Amino acid sequence: MAQRVLIHNPALTVDRFVEELNPDSVLVVTDSNVETKVLSRLGESEVVLKSPRVVVRPGEENKNLVSVEKIWTGLEKIGATRNSLIINIGGGMVTDLGGFAAATFKRGIRTLNLPTTLLSAVDAATGGKTGINYNGLKNEIGAFHSPSGVILSTLPFSTLSRKDLLSGYAEMVKSALIADRNLYISLLEIHEVLDNTDKLGKSVIKCVEIKEEIVAVDPLEKGLRKILNFGHTSGHAFESFRLRENRAVTHGEAVAHGILVALVLSHLKLGFETIELNHYRNFLKNNYGGSLINCADIPSIISLISHDKKNLRAGMAAFTLLRNIGSPEINVEVTPNEIQEALEIYQDMMG
Amino acid sequence: MAQRVLIHNPALTVDRFVEELNPDSVLVVTDSNVETKVLSRLGESEVVLKSPRVVVRPGEENKNLVSVEKIWTGLEKIGATRNSLIINIGGGMVTDLGGFAAATFKRGIRTLNLPTTLLSAVDAATGGKTGINYNGLKNEIGAFHSPSGVILSTLPFSTLSRKDLLSGYAEMVKSALIADRNLYISLLEIHEVLDNTDKLGKSVIKCVEIKEEIVAVDPLEKGLRKILNFGHTSGHAFESFRLRENRAVTHGEAVAHGILVALVLSHLKLGFETIELNHYRNFLKNNYGGSLINCADIPSIISLISHDKKNLRAGMAAFTLLRNIGSPEINVEVTPNEIQEALEIYQDMMG
Repeated sequence: MAQRVLIHNPALTVDRFVEELNPDSVLVVTDSNVETKVLSRLGESEVVLKSPRVVVRPGEENKNLVSVEKIWTGLEKIGATRNSLIINIGGGMVTDLGGFAAATFKRGIRTLNLPTTLLSAVDAATGGKTGINYNGLKNEIGAFHSPSGVILSTLPFSTLSRKDLLSGYAEMVKSALIADRNLYISLLEIHEVLDNTDKLGKSVIKCVEIKEEIVAVDPLEKGLRKILNFGHTSGHAFESFRLRENRAVTHGEAVAHGILVALVLSHLKLGFETIELNHYRNFLKNNYGGSLINCADIPSIISLISHDKKNLRAGMAAFTLLRNIGSPEINVEVTPNEIQEALEIYQDMMG
Repeated sequence: MAQRVLIHNPALTVDRFVEELNPDSVLVVTDSNVETKVLSRLGESEVVLKSPRVVVRPGEENKNLVSVEKIWTGLEKIGATRNSLIINIGGGMVTDLGGFAAATFKRGIRTLNLPTTLLSAVDAATGGKTGINYNGLKNEIGAFHSPSGVILSTLPFSTLSRKDLLSGYAEMVKSALIADRNLYISLLEIHEVLDNTDKLGKSVIKCVEIKEEIVAVDPLEKGLRKILNFGHTSGHAFESFRLRENRAVTHGEAVAHGILVALVLSHLKLGFETIELNHYRNFLKNNYGGSLINCADIPSIISLISHDKKNLRAGMAAFTLLRNIGSPEINVEVTPNEIQEALEIYQDMMG
C-alpha cells in the first residue's frame, strides 16, 4: 500500500521516505517544465538535489517508448539494481512514464511519486496504473505497478494555472460523487476549497483515500475499479472529439462535462434524482462553461463512445452510473439511442 | 495458476483451452524455426491454423524491443482488446518475448504457452518470468506475468537435437536435487528417461510441479524462489565466460556444471555428503563431458560470480546450496576464497 503524507514542504519527507526504503541507488525522473518550476522548491531535499536525473520533454506526446528508453538507459548508467528506486516528480505524464519504466526494469523496481499537479495528485500518482502512448493510442502499452510511496503536497500547486487546477478538481468531484456525499457538498463550494491550501490538501487526501480503498479491492480493474471510471465514458469521447477538432480541452474539463452526461443517464436508467442533477448542472455551468459540443456533433460522440475499449459487447456502451450520490453501479449497458437522448438533454441543460 | 496437461498430440488441447478462455481474438507468436518444424504438427488445431501469426526471427539476439514492437503492432492490427489472448509456441525465447509483449499490452492480456523445447517446458514457460535483452544485458527489461495456461507435450521434443535435450535435462536434475530425492535417483538413468516418451513426460510434469509450488509461495522472487537458482550462480558465470571466449555452451550444459560447483560448496559449507557429490560428478562426466574451464580461467569466473545481480552485498556472492538432496538453503554468502577453493576442487574432480 502506498504511503501518503500531506505537508506544505515535502522536501524533508522525500528524504525520510528514501531513508526508510533504503535503495541501492536513486534516479529522479521529471520533465523540463517541472525541473524549472518545481525542483528549486525542493532545495532542502538532499536526495532530490544530489541524485542523478533523467529529464524528459514535457507533454503527452513525449509519453512514449523513446522516453522510456531514456529512463532505462539512465538506470543502467547508475548501475541500478532490483533494490534501486525511481522518484517521479511531475504530473501524470511523468508518473505514468517513470512508473512504466520502473515496472519493467529488471522485472520491477520501486517508485516514489511526488505529483506536482492537482490532477496527478488525485489520480495518476496513486493506484498503480502506469503506461505510455503507442501508435497514437493513449496508454496502449503499460503495466499495473503500485508506487512504494506517494508524497502529497499542495506546495507545487501554486505553480498551476486556474485551468489546470480546475482540471484536477473535476476528478475530485468525481471521487466524491461515487463515494462521499458530504465531501461532494463541500466541493461544490469550489472557491472556498481552491483558495484555502489547508482545505484543498485535506480534500485531496480524502479523494486519494476513496481511490485507494477501491483499488485495494480490485487492483487489476476486473470489476469494482470501474467505479472510478464514472464520468469518463462520455468524458473521453468529448476529449478525443475536441482534440480532433483542434479545440482541445483539459482532461478534467472533459470529465466535468462527462459527469453531467452520466448523471442524465443515471436519471433515465436508475432514477437518480432531478434535484441533484440540477445542482450539478449549476456547478458545472458556473465553473466549467457551456456545452463542449453542438447538436451536429452528437453522432460523432455516440460513435466514439461505442468504440470505447472498456465496452463489454459490440455496439453496447458500458457506463458506470449512480443510483444516488455514493451508490455507483458498474457495467450498465446503454444503447446508442439512450446515449443520443442523454446527449440531447445535456445540450438542453447547458444551452 | 497455470493449467497443465500432458498429451502426445497437443493440438486438440489448445483448442479446448482457448474455448474455455473465450478470448475476443487470438494472436499466435512463434519464431521461423518453430513455424517450419513444429506448427505443421499442430495441424489439427483450428485455432493455431486460422489465427493470425507474428513470426519473429529465432535466437536470443532477437529477444529484443524490435520483436516486442512487432508483437504489439500485430495485436493492434487484429484489434486486440484486454480480453484477447497470445498463444506463444516456441522455446524460452518465444515465451519470454511473447509473455512480455502480453504483460505490457493494455496493461496485461492473457497468454497460453506451448513450449517446444525441453528446456522451456521445465523452465521458461511456467513461473511468470517474462523479458527481453536490452543494451546487451540478458532479461534486463521484463515483467512478472503468469500464463493462463501451459500445455506440456513431448510431441515437439522429437525435433530437438541430443544437445538441446541435454540442456533441458540439466534443469530437470536441478529441480529434483532441490526437492525430490526419488525423482533425482530416477533422472540419473538419463537414457531410460530420454528414450521413453512416457517416462520423460511424467518427469517433466513432476519438475514443473516442483517449480510451481515454489513460485506460488514467492511469485516475485523476494526470497524462497531463489531456491530455483540452485546451480545457476556458477552456471551463469560459465555460460557468460564461454560465450565471451567464442566457445559457447548451452544454458543447461553450463547449469549442469554449475550444479557440481554448488554441490562442492554445499559440501564445504553445509556438510553435503561426499558420496552424493561423487554420484553427481559421475553423472555429469558421463553425460556432459569434462571441465568447462582451465585453471587459468578461475579468476575470470570468480569475478563474474562476484558481480552477479542477485548478490546481497558487494564482493560476497549469494549462493543457493544444499544440506542434503531436497534441503536447499538460499542466500548462503560465499567469499572469493571459498569460490576459488570450490572451483579448484571442481577442476580436480572433472580433470
